[in-house]
Amino acid sequence: MTVARTVELEGHIIDSGTMGHCFGVVMDMGGEFEVEEFEVGRHKHAETYCRMTVMADTEEDLRAILHELNQQGATVADPRDATLEPAPEDGVVPIDFYSTTNHPTYVRVDGEWVEVADPEMDCALVVERGDPADPQGTGDAGEGDGEPRVSTKVLNAVEEGDLVVTGETGIRVEPPERPRDGGGSFGFMQGGVSSERPSESLIEEIADEMREVQAEDGNVLAVCGPAIVHAGGRDALADLVGAGYVDALSAGNGFAVHDLERDLYGTSLGVDTENLEHPREGHKHHIYTISEIVRLGGIEEAVEAGVVDEGVMYECVANDVPFVLAGSIRDDGPLPDTITDSIEAQNAIREQAHEADLVLMLSTLLHSVAVGNCLPSTTKTVCVDINPATVTQLLDRGSAQAIGMVTDIGTFIPMLRDELLE
Amino acid sequence: MTVARTVELEGHIIDSGTMGHCFGVVMDMGGEFEVEEFEVGRHKHAETYCRMTVMADTEEDLRAILHELNQQGATVADPRDATLEPAPEDGVVPIDFYSTTNHPTYVRVDGEWVEVADPEMDCALVVERGDPADPQGTGDAGEGDGEPRVSTKVLNAVEEGDLVVTGETGIRVEPPERPRDGGGSFGFMQGGVSSERPSESLIEEIADEMREVQAEDGNVLAVCGPAIVHAGGRDALADLVGAGYVDALSAGNGFAVHDLERDLYGTSLGVDTENLEHPREGHKHHIYTISEIVRLGGIEEAVEAGVVDEGVMYECVANDVPFVLAGSIRDDGPLPDTITDSIEAQNAIREQAHEADLVLMLSTLLHSVAVGNCLPSTTKTVCVDINPATVTQLLDRGSAQAIGMVTDIGTFIPMLRDELLE
Amino acid sequence: MTVARTVELEGHIIDSGTMGHCFGVVMDMGGEFEVEEFEVGRHKHAETYCRMTVMADTEEDLRAILHELNQQGATVADPRDATLEPAPEDGVVPIDFYSTTNHPTYVRVDGEWVEVADPEMDCALVVERGDPADPQGTGDAGEGDGEPRVSTKVLNAVEEGDLVVTGETGIRVEPPERPRDGGGSFGFMQGGVSSERPSESLIEEIADEMREVQAEDGNVLAVCGPAIVHAGGRDALADLVGAGYVDALSAGNGFAVHDLERDLYGTSLGVDTENLEHPREGHKHHIYTISEIVRLGGIEEAVEAGVVDEGVMYECVANDVPFVLAGSIRDDGPLPDTITDSIEAQNAIREQAHEADLVLMLSTLLHSVAVGNCLPSTTKTVCVDINPATVTQLLDRGSAQAIGMVTDIGTFIPMLRDELLE
Amino acid sequence: MTVARTVELEGHIIDSGTMGHCFGVVMDMGGEFEVEEFEVGRHKHAETYCRMTVMADTEEDLRAILHELNQQGATVADPRDATLEPAPEDGVVPIDFYSTTNHPTYVRVDGEWVEVADPEMDCALVVERGDPADPQGTGDAGEGDGEPRVSTKVLNAVEEGDLVVTGETGIRVEPPERPRDGGGSFGFMQGGVSSERPSESLIEEIADEMREVQAEDGNVLAVCGPAIVHAGGRDALADLVGAGYVDALSAGNGFAVHDLERDLYGTSLGVDTENLEHPREGHKHHIYTISEIVRLGGIEEAVEAGVVDEGVMYECVANDVPFVLAGSIRDDGPLPDTITDSIEAQNAIREQAHEADLVLMLSTLLHSVAVGNCLPSTTKTVCVDINPATVTQLLDRGSAQAIGMVTDIGTFIPMLRDELLE
Repeated sequence: MTVARTVELEGHIIDSGTMGHCFGVVMDMGGEFEVEEFEVGRHKHAETYCRMTVMADTEEDLRAILHELNQQGATVADPRDATLEPAPEDGVVPIDFYSTTNHPTYVRVDGEWVEVADPEMDCALVVERGDPADPQGTGDAGEGDGEPRVSTKVLNAVEEGDLVVTGETGIRVEPPERPRDGGGSFGFMQGGVSSERPSESLIEEIADEMREVQAEDGNVLAVCGPAIVHAGGRDALADLVGAGYVDALSAGNGFAVHDLERDLYGTSLGVDTENLEHPREGHKHHIYTISEIVRLGGIEEAVEAGVVDEGVMYECVANDVPFVLAGSIRDDGPLPDTITDSIEAQNAIREQAHEADLVLMLSTLLHSVAVGNCLPSTTKTVCVDINPATVTQLLDRGSAQAIGMVTDIGTFIPMLRDELLE
Repeated sequence: MTVARTVELEGHIIDSGTMGHCFGVVMDMGGEFEVEEFEVGRHKHAETYCRMTVMADTEEDLRAILHELNQQGATVADPRDATLEPAPEDGVVPIDFYSTTNHPTYVRVDGEWVEVADPEMDCALVVERGDPADPQGTGDAGEGDGEPRVSTKVLNAVEEGDLVVTGETGIRVEPPERPRDGGGSFGFMQGGVSSERPSESLIEEIADEMREVQAEDGNVLAVCGPAIVHAGGRDALADLVGAGYVDALSAGNGFAVHDLERDLYGTSLGVDTENLEHPREGHKHHIYTISEIVRLGGIEEAVEAGVVDEGVMYECVANDVPFVLAGSIRDDGPLPDTITDSIEAQNAIREQAHEADLVLMLSTLLHSVAVGNCLPSTTKTVCVDINPATVTQLLDRGSAQAIGMVTDIGTFIPMLRDELLE
Repeated sequence: MTVARTVELEGHIIDSGTMGHCFGVVMDMGGEFEVEEFEVGRHKHAETYCRMTVMADTEEDLRAILHELNQQGATVADPRDATLEPAPEDGVVPIDFYSTTNHPTYVRVDGEWVEVADPEMDCALVVERGDPADPQGTGDAGEGDGEPRVSTKVLNAVEEGDLVVTGETGIRVEPPERPRDGGGSFGFMQGGVSSERPSESLIEEIADEMREVQAEDGNVLAVCGPAIVHAGGRDALADLVGAGYVDALSAGNGFAVHDLERDLYGTSLGVDTENLEHPREGHKHHIYTISEIVRLGGIEEAVEAGVVDEGVMYECVANDVPFVLAGSIRDDGPLPDTITDSIEAQNAIREQAHEADLVLMLSTLLHSVAVGNCLPSTTKTVCVDINPATVTQLLDRGSAQAIGMVTDIGTFIPMLRDELLE
Repeated sequence: MTVARTVELEGHIIDSGTMGHCFGVVMDMGGEFEVEEFEVGRHKHAETYCRMTVMADTEEDLRAILHELNQQGATVADPRDATLEPAPEDGVVPIDFYSTTNHPTYVRVDGEWVEVADPEMDCALVVERGDPADPQGTGDAGEGDGEPRVSTKVLNAVEEGDLVVTGETGIRVEPPERPRDGGGSFGFMQGGVSSERPSESLIEEIADEMREVQAEDGNVLAVCGPAIVHAGGRDALADLVGAGYVDALSAGNGFAVHDLERDLYGTSLGVDTENLEHPREGHKHHIYTISEIVRLGGIEEAVEAGVVDEGVMYECVANDVPFVLAGSIRDDGPLPDTITDSIEAQNAIREQAHEADLVLMLSTLLHSVAVGNCLPSTTKTVCVDINPATVTQLLDRGSAQAIGMVTDIGTFIPMLRDELLE
C-alpha cells in the first residue's frame, strides 16, 4: 500500500448504510482502510462522524476507490477547490470530467461550497461566474467575477469553453439519509418491490401521499403508458386529472392516440378500441384518429372544436395540466403535439422532472426511464407495473424514497380514484 | 405411400379448426391425404362431413398419423370393436394402451358405442362388463356379461387383469366445437391470454358467469394460492364463500395456514402477517398457528372451539363448503387437515374436479395444474395470475372454454366481491 | 338479416385456418353465412374454393364483417375498381380510407389488379398513374395516364391530393398460406413461443436458415438491443458480422455506445462495462466514450482514426455493413450517428425492413417493434429474448413464418457463432 | 419510553450491514436507542463492538424489537440461561417458543453456550441432556445429566415432553459476515440477481467453484427441474454426473420420468419427447415409461435390466450418486422410487441439504424452495432459472453466499459441461 488519502463521512451514515458500503468498497477494490476517528451517533437524532485513511497499491487504484467513496458521500479531508477545465468542443468533455450522481452535490469554487442546481445523474458539472454587470448570467461563462453558479449539463448541452469540473477534488455529495421516521410506506434506497402492504392498503397509502402533496401545493407528475387505456384505467385517470390530483403528464404518442381514439370511436365501437391482444382490429380508427387531430391542428384545437370532449387528454386541456408527448420509433402518425426529436423531448421531460415532487410511473418503462434519468434522488417515486422486472429496474435507478407495486393498472387506477374521490 | 386408411370427421369442424388441423397433421407427419367426400356445413347450424383416405410410407408412420387424427376427432371409417388387453400387473399397462385426451370419448364394445365416464387426460381406458347378477359392477371386471362400462383410470389405479383399451380402433373422440354463439367472454381453445376486455369489464363477465352457475345450481370450485392472503384478497374471498358463490375449495397447506394465521394474529400484528416480501417476520406466528390447530385437532375443531371465527377457512366450515388441502414438500407443519400423500391428495382433487361446472384458478400454478389434470375439456375455466406465463400454461392444458386474466389477485378478488355482492 | 353480399375465398384456406376464421368472424359479429359453392382441395397441393353469401342486420354491420373477411383474404364476388379519394391535406386521410394489412395486396384500378409495392400494415394505399411522358412517376400523382402504381404510405407521408383507396371494394388480400412442407422450424402464424426443439437444436436450425439465406445472396437484418453487450454476446456477434452473416444492423444509441465503450475501456476496466445491475459504475466511461466519438465526428471516423478497432460497430464499418442507430428519449449523448428524429429514423428502418429476407430480433422490444411495423408478412423472423412476453408480443405482430426463442442472449449468440463458424 | 434493555453486537457488523439494520429496526418499530459503548473496527480485520440500550413504550414493544435484534445477531448484555418449556403434545409447541433463523445459533444451557446442530429456519430448538450412561443420547430427553445438546426440530417432529426453548433469553445468533475477500462471484446477502458478469464469465466462475468443492472432497447437491430435459440440458447433466461433479440429486417424479422417457423412446421418436409446448404429443410414452419402470420394480432395477442405459438417472445409479424423488400432486404415475408422502420426502431432502456444501438449484422453484428451507445460511447456493422472479425468490430465502443467474437451462448446462469437461 504505497499511496494513501484521508476521507471524512458525516451524518446518519450507519443506518443509511453509507459507512458499511464505504468499508466494503475499499475492501472489494483491493484497498485498505485505517479508521482514525469515529464518533458514533449515540441516539436516533445524533449523527456519526468518521475520518479514515484509505490506502491502495497505485495512484490509479486509489483514484478509483476515492471516486466510489465520493459517490457515497465521503469527502477528502483537506478540501481544495474543484479543478476546472474548459470543454474542448461543443458536446465534448475533458477526459477526466466528473460524472454526476443524482444526489445533492456541492462544488468548492473560490474557497466556497456552491450547491449544484438541479442535480441529475450522468451529467457534467459546469461552473459559471456571474458577471456583476450581468447578474442574470447571460454573459460569457467564466469571464465574470461575480457569484459562481454550478449546474448540471448533459453531454449534448455542453458548449465549447464551458468550465467543466474534473477529478474528484472539491466535490461533496450528500447521499440521502434514512428518514428518522422510517419514511412511511416509501422504502429507503430499496431496489426491490416494496410489497409491505397488500394491494388495497398500499393504494390507500399512495392516495394519502397524493393528498399530502396536493395539500402542500406540490407537483404530481404522472408518467403514463398506453396500457392504461388498454387495461381500462383511462376513465379513472381522467377523473383524477379533472379533480386536480395530477399537475403534469408525460407520455408518448401512443397513450394520447389511444385515449383520443376512445373518445372519437369509443362509444360506437366499444370493445375493439380497448383490445390489447388484437391490435389489428379497429386499427383503422387508430390511424383515422390521428388524421383527424392532424386536420384540426392538435389536441388543444380538437378540444376547442368540440371533437374531443372527454378522456385524459381532454381533462389536461380543460384543466390547464401541461403535458409532454415524446415521440418514438414505434409511433403511428404521430400527432402534431408529439415531439419527434429525442433531444428536444428529453429537454421537455427534464423540465417536468425538475418541477415534480411526486412522480407516478404508470405502466411504461420507456417514459419512466426517461423521466427517472432527470430526477434528483430526493424526489418521491411510485412505480406501478404488472411486470416485476420493470418495477425492479425503475426502483434500481435511484430514488431514495420509492414505492414499487406489481399490479394491474386496469384495477389500480380505478381503486386509486375511488380512494381519492369517494 | 404404401399404406392407407380411410377416416371420417363430422361436426362444426371448419370453424372449430379441426379440419384444418387434420390436414396439417397429415402433411407435417409426412403423409398424404385424398378427400373422398366433403359436404360443407352451408350455414351456421349445419355440420360438415369429410371422408378422406390418409396415406403414409410405413405402417408405423400411418399409426402415428392416425393417433394424432384420432385425438382431433377423426374416426376410422369402418368401425370395429376396440381391442382390449388385460393389465399384466397392478400399475402396469399393456404396451400399446390408448392414452386418453380430456374430450368426451366413446369406445366400441360388443358393437355398441359406450361413453367413457369422467373423461380425463393421460389415463388408460378400462372396460368392465357389469355382472347381470351384480348390476352395481362391484364384481370382478371382465367376468360379467351385462352392460359394458368404460372408465378412465390413472396408472396407479390400474389393477392386474383390468381390460385396457389398446390401439386406436373402436375409439371416437369428440373434441369441443366452437360455440355457435361465440361463447361469450370465454375464449374457444385459445392458448393465450384473453384480454378481450379491460380488467373491470372482464371482472363483470366473470361475475355474470358465477351468477349463472349459481342460478343453475351448478358447482364452482375455487383453487386458491397463498398469494390471495399476501396480496390482500382474503377477506373478499371469505365474503364470497359466505355468500354461497364458492361450492368447493382446493388449496394447499400454505393457503390455509396464512388464512388462519391472519385470524389468530391478524388483529394485533397487522402488517407482518400480510407481508410477502419479508416472510421471515412474523414467521413465529405462522408456525404457532399450525401448532394451535394441531393442538385443537383440525380446522373444524378450531372453528367449533371459537378460536377461528373469520376468514376463508372459517366460512368454508360455517357454510359446509368442502375443502381439500393437498400437501407439498414446501409445507410448514402441516395442518392436521392437510393430505400429505400425493396420490391420496390427487384422488381427493379428482373428485372435486369431476363435480365442478366452473373452476376459478386463483394465483396458484401447482394446485391449478393438479386440478386441471383431472378436468374434462368441457368444464369452464377462469385462470387469474399476475404472471402471464402461468396463465398461458394453464390455458394450454386444455379447457375448451377458458378466460385467462393477468391481474393482481389483491385487487381482482375485492372487485369481484363488489361486483357480486354490492 | 336484411343486407347481404357474396364473397369468395381460394387457396389452401382450410389448413391455413382462413376458412374457419371467416366462418367464426361472421358468427362472432352477429351475421349469418350461406355457402353457395364449396370445392375442397382434395389433396395436399389442391386448392379449395368457397363462395358464400354473408348476411347482416344493417349495412354498417355488414361493412364491418366484410372488412374483417377482407383482411382474411376474402374478396367480394363481383370485382369493381377500388374507390379513390384525394387526401384533403398533408398527413390527413379521407374518413373511409382503407388501412392496410402486411399481406400481399392487390388493388383493382382501371379494371386491372395492381400489386401493392412494399406491403406494410396500418398504411394508406395511394394510387399514382404514371405519366407516359414521365415513366419514373416523378410527376404529379393522378395526372398521368400511364400504368397505375399502388404504394403504401404512412400517415405522415400522405400529401394533399394523393389518391387514397377508400372502402373495401376492389381490394384483394392474400394472407400467407401454410407451407406445404410444414415450414421447417418456422412456425406458421403462431403467436406463441415455438419451442419445438430444445435450445441447442433450435440454434442449429437458425444457423441453417442463416446459411441458406447467405447461400442465396439474401439479406439478414440483425436488430440489436444493449443486453447483447451486457450479457456477453458482443464478441460473438462481432464475429458473425465479420464473417458476413449479417447484412444490415438496426439498433439504438445505447447498443452502439456499450459496444464502443467496451472497445475504448473494455481491456482496462473489464467487468464494470459489462455490468447490467450496477449501471452507475463505470458510467463515466459511457459518457466519455460518446464524448470521444463526438470529438472524432462519428463511428466511421473513429474507426478510421484507429480509436475503435474491434467490436460490432467496428466490424460493421470494416465490412461495409450498413447500420441505422435510432434515437430514443432514454439515450445518453447521443452519438453523432444516431438519428434523433423519430420519423426520420422510421424511414431509415423502413428501408432496412423492405430489403430484409430474414430478420433476427435480438433482445430489444422497442427496435424490434419498429422494424416489425414495416415488415411484410412474408419476411421470415427470428425473435430471441429472455422475457417470454416480449417474444409473444413480437410473434403476434405478424410474420407468417417465425421462430420465437426464450433464451439468454449471452449464451445464444456464442452458441450460434460456434455453430456457424466452427 | 418506559422499558429498556441493553444489548451487544460484535464482529464485522458495519460492512455486513448488521449495525445499520439494528439501528433501523429500533427506529422503525417505534423504539429509541442510546449507544453506550462503541469501538469501531479500525481496519479490515478488526471487529467492531457496540453496546447500546434499547427503549420502548411497552414491554410487548420491547420484546418485539429485541426479537428482531436477536435475529440480527444482537444479544442481551447480561446472559442468562435459555428458558425451556416442555412441548405439551406431539406436534405442538409452547406459545412463546423460539422460532429459528438459518444462521449459526448458540443456546445457553447450564451456564454454557451450546451450538445448535444443523441450523434450519422456522424450527423449534429442543434441548436434550445426554445421559452419562447413554452417551449416544438415545435415552429420554431431559432425563439425563450429561452434556446438553440442542437441535432444530420441525413442528411435526416435536414430541410431547421435548424441552423447547422459549423467549429470547440465552440465545445467540451469528448472522453471516461479509467475507473479507469479497466472496468472489458469490454475492453477500444479496436478494437480487447477481449479474456481475456476462453469462459466459459467470458460468466459468460456477465451474471454478464446482472444481474447488470437488478438490476439497465437498458435496454438490443438484436440484433439478423437468425443464432441464425439455430445454435440452439433459445429456450435459448426465455427463456431469458421470464425471463426478454431482454428489447428490434432488428432483421430482417429472424430472426422472422425462429423463427415462428420453432413454426409452428418445432415439426413435426424437422431437416429441423434448417438446415443452405440446405436452399432449408423445404423452403415451410418458405414461408407458412409468408403467415399464413400475413393471421392473424401480429405476435401479431398470438399469440393472439394461432397459435404461443412458441419461441422468442412469448415471446416478451407475455412479452411486444418491437421489431423492419427491412426489407432488402434479405427478403422473408415479415411479416406484418417488416418495409420495410430503413429510417423508421433506425428511429425505433435509438429509441431502445438511450434507451439501454447494447447492445448484436448476430450473425448479418447488424443489429449490424445499431444499432451501432446510439449508443453513452458510451453504453456498447457485440458482439458475429463466424466470427472474424465481431467482429473486430463491435468493431472498437466505443463503449468505449465493449466485443468481437468469438464463436458459438448455444452454447453461451444455456450456457448464464444456467448461468443466473440455
